Amino acid sequence: MPSEFDIIRQYFTPSSISQTRDDVVLGIGDDAAILDISEHHQQHQLVQSVDTLVAGVHFPLETSPQDIAYKALAVNLSDMAAMGAEPAWFTLAITLPDADEKWLEAFSESLSIIAKQYNVQLIGGDTTNGPLCISITINGFVAAGKALTRHKAQVADKIYVSGTIGDAALALAAWQGQCSLREESIGYLQQRLNRPKPQIELGLLLSEYASSCIDISDGLIADLEHITDNSNVGATIILEKIPLSKEFNLNLTDDALIVPLVLSGGDDYELCFTIPLDKQTEFEKVAKGNNFKVTCIGEIESSKGVRCLFKNKEVEIQISGYKHFVD
Amino acid sequence: MPSEFDIIRQYFTPSSISQTRDDVVLGIGDDAAILDISEHHQQHQLVQSVDTLVAGVHFPLETSPQDIAYKALAVNLSDMAAMGAEPAWFTLAITLPDADEKWLEAFSESLSIIAKQYNVQLIGGDTTNGPLCISITINGFVAAGKALTRHKAQVADKIYVSGTIGDAALALAAWQGQCSLREESIGYLQQRLNRPKPQIELGLLLSEYASSCIDISDGLIADLEHITDNSNVGATIILEKIPLSKEFNLNLTDDALIVPLVLSGGDDYELCFTIPLDKQTEFEKVAKGNNFKVTCIGEIESSKGVRCLFKNKEVEIQISGYKHFVD
Repeated sequence: MPSEFDIIRQYFTPSSISQTRDDVVLGIGDDAAILDISEHHQQHQLVQSVDTLVAGVHFPLETSPQDIAYKALAVNLSDMAAMGAEPAWFTLAITLPDADEKWLEAFSESLSIIAKQYNVQLIGGDTTNGPLCISITINGFVAAGKALTRHKAQVADKIYVSGTIGDAALALAAWQGQCSLREESIGYLQQRLNRPKPQIELGLLLSEYASSCIDISDGLIADLEHITDNSNVGATIILEKIPLSKEFNLNLTDDALIVPLVLSGGDDYELCFTIPLDKQTEFEKVAKGNNFKVTCIGEIESSKGVRCLFKNKEVEIQISGYKHFVD
Repeated sequence: MPSEFDIIRQYFTPSSISQTRDDVVLGIGDDAAILDISEHHQQHQLVQSVDTLVAGVHFPLETSPQDIAYKALAVNLSDMAAMGAEPAWFTLAITLPDADEKWLEAFSESLSIIAKQYNVQLIGGDTTNGPLCISITINGFVAAGKALTRHKAQVADKIYVSGTIGDAALALAAWQGQCSLREESIGYLQQRLNRPKPQIELGLLLSEYASSCIDISDGLIADLEHITDNSNVGATIILEKIPLSKEFNLNLTDDALIVPLVLSGGDDYELCFTIPLDKQTEFEKVAKGNNFKVTCIGEIESSKGVRCLFKNKEVEIQISGYKHFVD
């Protein structure tokens, strides 16, 4: 059985896990990594956040090591996207029930692929023994003063989402036995749950236009509430305007699921953001020109809280996003 | 029962957890923290590492929340000390079996105290539900090119340790029922196990003198081996020279425990480092002048591996530090 040091050497050293970035002076293998920040100086700010995935809580226990690795990094990259930041480095704290070498090999290979894809490097790790849990701290850079936050949405700003909403929640609902999926849609929908695409490029564009931004992890309403609460405003969104995928529409046989899946289901990792009215036309033109799918779904208002209208009537929203520890 | 958001708001927001550093532009409460690095530019490099504590593995299950919080941050600060870095910020990923408000209050209060003491600020957190596990990623700064690493020890360099060695391992052995402690020593020894003192100030001094450095977490031999392996050298240390505390000597009734406790016991979080021969005299003078307890315990050699002599005979070392996953 390999020791902790063997695991780190074999599966998480720079050569095996990710490409070397020029700004990593010293990577894994010492008490800490050493990082060159000289290029950033006045022009940039460092952006950092942490996200943990617990087996059985954030992903089904039988999820493949490839999907777990991908998702663990993707949800962190998504935080960088939501800040309008360009990701750079990450640390990985992984707690493993045992040192299953096949599992580790698959995990580290998959992590390596997504790390290369987004040009981020693993710079530090800690491998411990216990119930499966993966915690990643990610670092990125934004132009000074240009970071997207949650607290600057203004009344009359337009509310947008990227991509389509509800696919991940539908895949999860099917996995939980709440509904069944058509054979030909399973691949797409599971991909949407297990392999969310961090919207880094869109985030970088938004840093020029958006007044606020968040990634949809807890559910559209819950995450939009983070923006409205932090900005001391409210919002109304229109259910009919929320973009749904072809597969979502094909597989949704029970209309009663629309509200929980689209409004409260999380895990899409699309961006929800606000655009000031006077920038709307230009933003939509630029987004279209760059092939970003963005959809206006509502408006920021002064009246607190988040409302959702369907056929001009307010939808009753009972579940508001995934909250740990709530009974 | 509080939700995840309530927990973050109540126990881990800047006002409750730690003082505000001027370089934290935006702390907890968004998708990521925003950090000003403009002061550092060419003069400094960013140093970052991650350390996880798992309940039942890294600390006994009945450890108080105060001690867990202290130790979780202290072991990370210790990594900064081992790099010769000045710590700045940290992220906290905490997995909790339940939302016990008394536990959380005690934990966050204690975390706040040590954070203030070392002028570090909590800048990001993720609270999840599961078996107790705390993962901290810490950030610090070193003068460019001055970081202490493990790979630059040279033949003939002198090997030093700070403080005294074995206290934490003795406290752990007593807790495990392997030995008993004198009533009057319990407080001191448990403090050494639960409240290790990160050697930040010594680390900063060492960045001017030492050729390599590591903190003793896995055990003296195992950690010194990290230095010799990475530097492609070997080492001989002298058992009689290893500094032991008065309490250690008073409580050690079974001589057979000396080797496992002093050579292989971890958790002391003292520094082990190497000083080039030509800097030895000046270093000892400066260390003494600054009231640092440092002791020369051996020498770097060309012959690979780490040897320990006792009465001029080589000690058999069977256990070499705590390794997760080893049967």
